[in-house]
Amino acid sequence: MSQASRIARRTFLAGSAVAAAASGLPRTVDAQTGAALPARPTELGAPLRPYGTPSPFERDVVRVAADGPPTAISSWDFTPLQHLEGIVTPSGLVFERNHGGVPQIDPARHRLLVHGLVDNPRVFTLDDLRRLPSVSVMRFLECSGNSLSEWKKPTGATVQITHGLVSCCEWTGVRVSAVLAELGLKPGAKWVLAEGADAALMDRSVPLEKMMDDALLVWSQNGEALRPEQGYPLRLLLPGFEGNMNVKWLRRLKVASEPFYTREETAKYTDLLGNGEARMFTFAMEAKSVITRPSGGMHLGRRGSYEISGLAWSGRGKIVRVEVSSDAGASWNAASLQEPVLTKCLTRFRYPWTWNGGEAVLQSRCVDETGYVQPTLADLVRVRGLNSFYHLNAIQSWHVASGGEVTNIHA
Amino acid sequence: MSQASRIARRTFLAGSAVAAAASGLPRTVDAQTGAALPARPTELGAPLRPYGTPSPFERDVVRVAADGPPTAISSWDFTPLQHLEGIVTPSGLVFERNHGGVPQIDPARHRLLVHGLVDNPRVFTLDDLRRLPSVSVMRFLECSGNSLSEWKKPTGATVQITHGLVSCCEWTGVRVSAVLAELGLKPGAKWVLAEGADAALMDRSVPLEKMMDDALLVWSQNGEALRPEQGYPLRLLLPGFEGNMNVKWLRRLKVASEPFYTREETAKYTDLLGNGEARMFTFAMEAKSVITRPSGGMHLGRRGSYEISGLAWSGRGKIVRVEVSSDAGASWNAASLQEPVLTKCLTRFRYPWTWNGGEAVLQSRCVDETGYVQPTLADLVRVRGLNSFYHLNAIQSWHVASGGEVTNIHA
Repeated sequence: MSQASRIARRTFLAGSAVAAAASGLPRTVDAQTGAALPARPTELGAPLRPYGTPSPFERDVVRVAADGPPTAISSWDFTPLQHLEGIVTPSGLVFERNHGGVPQIDPARHRLLVHGLVDNPRVFTLDDLRRLPSVSVMRFLECSGNSLSEWKKPTGATVQITHGLVSCCEWTGVRVSAVLAELGLKPGAKWVLAEGADAALMDRSVPLEKMMDDALLVWSQNGEALRPEQGYPLRLLLPGFEGNMNVKWLRRLKVASEPFYTREETAKYTDLLGNGEARMFTFAMEAKSVITRPSGGMHLGRRGSYEISGLAWSGRGKIVRVEVSSDAGASWNAASLQEPVLTKCLTRFRYPWTWNGGEAVLQSRCVDETGYVQPTLADLVRVRGLNSFYHLNAIQSWHVASGGEVTNIHA
Repeated sequence: MSQASRIARRTFLAGSAVAAAASGLPRTVDAQTGAALPARPTELGAPLRPYGTPSPFERDVVRVAADGPPTAISSWDFTPLQHLEGIVTPSGLVFERNHGGVPQIDPARHRLLVHGLVDNPRVFTLDDLRRLPSVSVMRFLECSGNSLSEWKKPTGATVQITHGLVSCCEWTGVRVSAVLAELGLKPGAKWVLAEGADAALMDRSVPLEKMMDDALLVWSQNGEALRPEQGYPLRLLLPGFEGNMNVKWLRRLKVASEPFYTREETAKYTDLLGNGEARMFTFAMEAKSVITRPSGGMHLGRRGSYEISGLAWSGRGKIVRVEVSSDAGASWNAASLQEPVLTKCLTRFRYPWTWNGGEAVLQSRCVDETGYVQPTLADLVRVRGLNSFYHLNAIQSWHVASGGEVTNIHA
């Protein structure tokens, strides 16, 4: 140790004092600043754990169901976007939606049947799939019902409830195109039924074109095996397509010449328009963004500099621009986009903002690489009417009161 | 439902039969293939959970200590790289290394003192830091002791033990340069002491140049708060520098004109060379790669196509090339690199391989953007000798026996 640094360290230690505080740890006083700091622990800390979990101080950072404490048949819960950073959603907090509860599947006994209009129908084990060339991608997943509470009036108190049915992970698996190429497609093949091994046998029809483009059979999420709620041990990943088509606990692919018109694409997951007609097979999730901080339920403290931070995504490709407004859309400024910006992936945007202590309305608006601009709610309602639930991708508004309280409004 | 698809579905159902199996679920027989498949569950599955955890079938995918079951004072455990995919290490499996156990810190009471050669020394709360402009990066962290068991003979039975002191996460925080710029640096400032709030007050000297380049104060790991073992609620991130310099539970930065010559940079974390001199302040982790599958402890099944998959990284920038050999380095072939390839980040490589059923020795070798080529162990020992523990980044060899057993060898 150099003489200079020895003295520097001694000065720090000599200037410290330990006092018994009324609560919590004793504190140390720094000589240079006079600041009181928490003292070092005097006991050895906690030992190793085979599998890490969050700090007990993070106990409120959890998924929540839409209507209070979940029951045995609750079937959706929301990611706490207001507490998250970056673009990776930690696997424990990825939103959940199921149609028959979460099955417990032994991967050694799981099978995937691929049949229908193929030359060589085949049953795959997971080991069979893992011998094929694999690929990893960062992609978002969004339930088409995300934001469904927001059509008629601002309802969700937090961004967790208004937008928490979207998450983003690194997924690893094999291309569906590689599997189908190995089996050989028969003439007339145009659609593929995907069926889950849950109690509901959740199934959807997927255009063969999507299957041959970027569809994957995935077994891994953020490096480790899929979580049970996300389809362990195998799910279909259809990047950019509405969540429930990414069939979990995948047990069957059936190739056919026509769609299967299953319950979840006829009675459900269609959009009744104002004129009485229904949109069906609305697969791609259109470009959408939301400010996650500040957002509903937060309280700003003293006036001054804040960072506005949020997420943008598009089921049709990359996000190319996000703009932020603090005056309900009267003026817009470009936010910075965190690199890398990836296709069909959450993109984190940030904008430095100075709060003057007065009222403000915060909004974000994104543009994707197809040129599609995220619409206002009024523009969306003009086209879609107010009969439908799904595919609300409108601009979200957060009102900042002069007292600093942030609330959900329609602006 | 179309007539064709109705018939198709009826055929599937009519051809099915449920039989009571000796163990496990009853099975369904597919008419087209005659294949027996697990039947659907007949009961509602598990309900929602506020925070997801891995399937019970993944109970063996955990961190393990080097020498059997950890005790209260065990201080390092390893990431199970052989079970992981992609480049994100799930937070629960990020390797651990501590010097005084894991402290439990209330983030509301935590403080960071920044003092020494600054114009305006200051104590920061976490809320103070969160008002500054933030940034998210995917970066690896590697203990400089990673692979220390492998200098003299092949010791680790699995890649978890030979290479499991490396992990990779998306980290979010603020630039140290922004904090120091706000406080103002005094003339002569060249080094910064970083000190943790653990029982050991773990501290290291960091060149100011690194602090002003890409150093971050991070509070988030893979989207959520840091895990306790990774420094909750605040750690220093020095991309590419040896793990223990990325001080966890960070409570103090002291700016000075000289290094502090702390215990962990004099008595420990130095490299005694063959000539009796010691290398000190060996900060950057040099380029390194390893095949994670197949790897030690695995058994190949039938001959034929396999995917060789592994990880490469460099503390000096991006990986530009990875080559794979199956004949102990006699010949090399380029592996494919999974995009995006990021700086100072794990890079996943893959190579399709056909196993002919005979003996093979699998190796990988990487090159980073500085042109540095990962050395053989013989080359590394020639320079460093066999007195030191740290910074072993040599090529790893896995022997495949004709029976399919994979073991760790020096080749």
